[in-house]
Amino acid sequence: MIVDTQTAHFESLPLDCGVQLSPVEVAYETWGELNGDASNAILIAHAFSGDAHAAGIHQRTGRPGWWDNMIGPGKAFDTNRFFVICSNILGGCAGTTGPSSINPATGEPYAMRFPVITVPDIVRLQRLLMDHLGIARLLCVAGGSMGGMQALEWAVAYPERVASVIPIATTHRHSAQQIAFNEVGRQAIMADPDWNGGDYYQTGRRPARGLAVARMVGHITYMSDASMKAKFGRKLRDKASPAFDFSAEFEVESYLRYRGSQFVDRFDANSYLYITKAMDYFDLSAGRGSLAAALERTQARCLLISFSSDWLYPSYQSQEIVRALRSRNRDVAYVELNSDYGHDAFLVTVEEQAEIVRGFLHSTARLVGA
Amino acid sequence: MIVDTQTAHFESLPLDCGVQLSPVEVAYETWGELNGDASNAILIAHAFSGDAHAAGIHQRTGRPGWWDNMIGPGKAFDTNRFFVICSNILGGCAGTTGPSSINPATGEPYAMRFPVITVPDIVRLQRLLMDHLGIARLLCVAGGSMGGMQALEWAVAYPERVASVIPIATTHRHSAQQIAFNEVGRQAIMADPDWNGGDYYQTGRRPARGLAVARMVGHITYMSDASMKAKFGRKLRDKASPAFDFSAEFEVESYLRYRGSQFVDRFDANSYLYITKAMDYFDLSAGRGSLAAALERTQARCLLISFSSDWLYPSYQSQEIVRALRSRNRDVAYVELNSDYGHDAFLVTVEEQAEIVRGFLHSTARLVGA
Repeated sequence: MIVDTQTAHFESLPLDCGVQLSPVEVAYETWGELNGDASNAILIAHAFSGDAHAAGIHQRTGRPGWWDNMIGPGKAFDTNRFFVICSNILGGCAGTTGPSSINPATGEPYAMRFPVITVPDIVRLQRLLMDHLGIARLLCVAGGSMGGMQALEWAVAYPERVASVIPIATTHRHSAQQIAFNEVGRQAIMADPDWNGGDYYQTGRRPARGLAVARMVGHITYMSDASMKAKFGRKLRDKASPAFDFSAEFEVESYLRYRGSQFVDRFDANSYLYITKAMDYFDLSAGRGSLAAALERTQARCLLISFSSDWLYPSYQSQEIVRALRSRNRDVAYVELNSDYGHDAFLVTVEEQAEIVRGFLHSTARLVGA
Repeated sequence: MIVDTQTAHFESLPLDCGVQLSPVEVAYETWGELNGDASNAILIAHAFSGDAHAAGIHQRTGRPGWWDNMIGPGKAFDTNRFFVICSNILGGCAGTTGPSSINPATGEPYAMRFPVITVPDIVRLQRLLMDHLGIARLLCVAGGSMGGMQALEWAVAYPERVASVIPIATTHRHSAQQIAFNEVGRQAIMADPDWNGGDYYQTGRRPARGLAVARMVGHITYMSDASMKAKFGRKLRDKASPAFDFSAEFEVESYLRYRGSQFVDRFDANSYLYITKAMDYFDLSAGRGSLAAALERTQARCLLISFSSDWLYPSYQSQEIVRALRSRNRDVAYVELNSDYGHDAFLVTVEEQAEIVRGFLHSTARLVGA
């Protein structure tokens, strides 16, 4: 399944902060075929550091997609039956307009002059893309982590345009602890002198050290105590006893340093700031009375999934959403899957998740006649 | 209870890394009176960022001690009955020899030329201090977090010199996750150009930003999801709606920034590196066969305490120690206290803890005739 990234262009996008962003580009990929009445389309919403390349082998890079184990012919998101779309989010750095894009008004990168964006803004742009693709109503919007926030926002903001949602390992709003971890990442980036107030695109010096530290914190929160124990324990790297120095002696240290430095090559530090801010701002109930009142608006069938060892987006957060949906008699199914993989489980532990998603999509398709 | 910090001087200290550190100074404070047969002495071992000022009001600074709610006349560590000592640990930055001390060989601060130290080194220096004070056998060694590691090491390394230990919210060795959080802190410091390879004492520029980021991560791990929710939730600072900028908008953000910057004024970045490394190296079982074989050496009565919401030093780590002690028929009591305060609970939630410690100390004193 070879795939290439495409780009759609839009004249402008109104943002929650009041700014009209103009123009806007969206990078996206698709798999499978849209059927005659455009009723078999599924939007995959990616997580914080994801991109449009969710499945297949990328034509130029040869890389597999980040959810390739879930999307493809015969897989949970079955591309023999469904037309699957994934787009890079607004504010991102993988083809969609974000802080590293050129501001047409100045001919220079926006950097920190990019307007602050929100999850509703991100979803509003996805809706433009659906218009562009001729999809009046999505069969499903699915995603994990920040992708789950987008699925929830779709369900509530555009009830007539989505038949079902699958929010996975997510929350209707960040807790203080979740905001705190994001804030540490932001401060690590902004503490790096090479960040230079965001204007590093033309200096030849990116805030690589700050961004790497931010990513290291992230990686700890994506794993669990148990999965780190299983993967690293207290194993030393290439030696039997400690060297009494400050090199990366423990395997977990060298892993984190590696993942940190690797991230710097593929992610933009200003996008890190803007997207984490959008996550922290997200509150599905804001301006809608309460969580239950917000969710009452949806007409979508809802499937929520959480993972037992996920301490970054703990199961109680999914359960709050489930309770609110039930309180308003919405159609909701929920499952907590056992896994040691922590928050990463939605990307890693897929067998049970795949079966549940498969069944849910097929029954939804039957119901809506897709 | 006005108190001043005193200093003891020692000619040299042999370290696990093979170096003889010379000379060595130890800052310490004492409360209460040593009795005639020196049988009523209790050593308080401080945690990572603590110091010798555990109780009372400091003569010069006017500050209360970090465990003032536990130590004093009529308190859990009752200074009407016991002679209580607390010393700043080796490698620290509050009066005991550490990386910011002057290396007599060069006349300049050691900085990263300070030898790598271990928890057994820290305890070896405490033992010298006990010799200096004429205390052949301690009634108790007590401490939380890294202080608990020191209590455990005392129990195993010097069984004839300690009648009881109270390791609180601690572990016999760090997990991969605990090492990972420490490594993030170290990387944040070393990523700061002002760290300058550790040689910042004479540049007039300390690695304040890196150290602040490290401390922010620390603070998140010391609290719990529930305590952060209770203290901050999603409250905005001085406003009702988001400003759409990158200022500290959420109260939790401004709290973390404040605690980070405050820490910089009182703590040395190189001490941060050395002490976290000592914590990561600590393994009570290393060179002793197994945890149970190590703990079999102790003659001390043991009281272990952990806290239900402490996810940095989870209860299962205390329970591993308790099981190992029981497997070798050692004298051990254990209690998990309910608290929402996370790892900080040993400093914050003291009523139940105080009652348990009080009873344990009095029965130990009766047993040994103190």
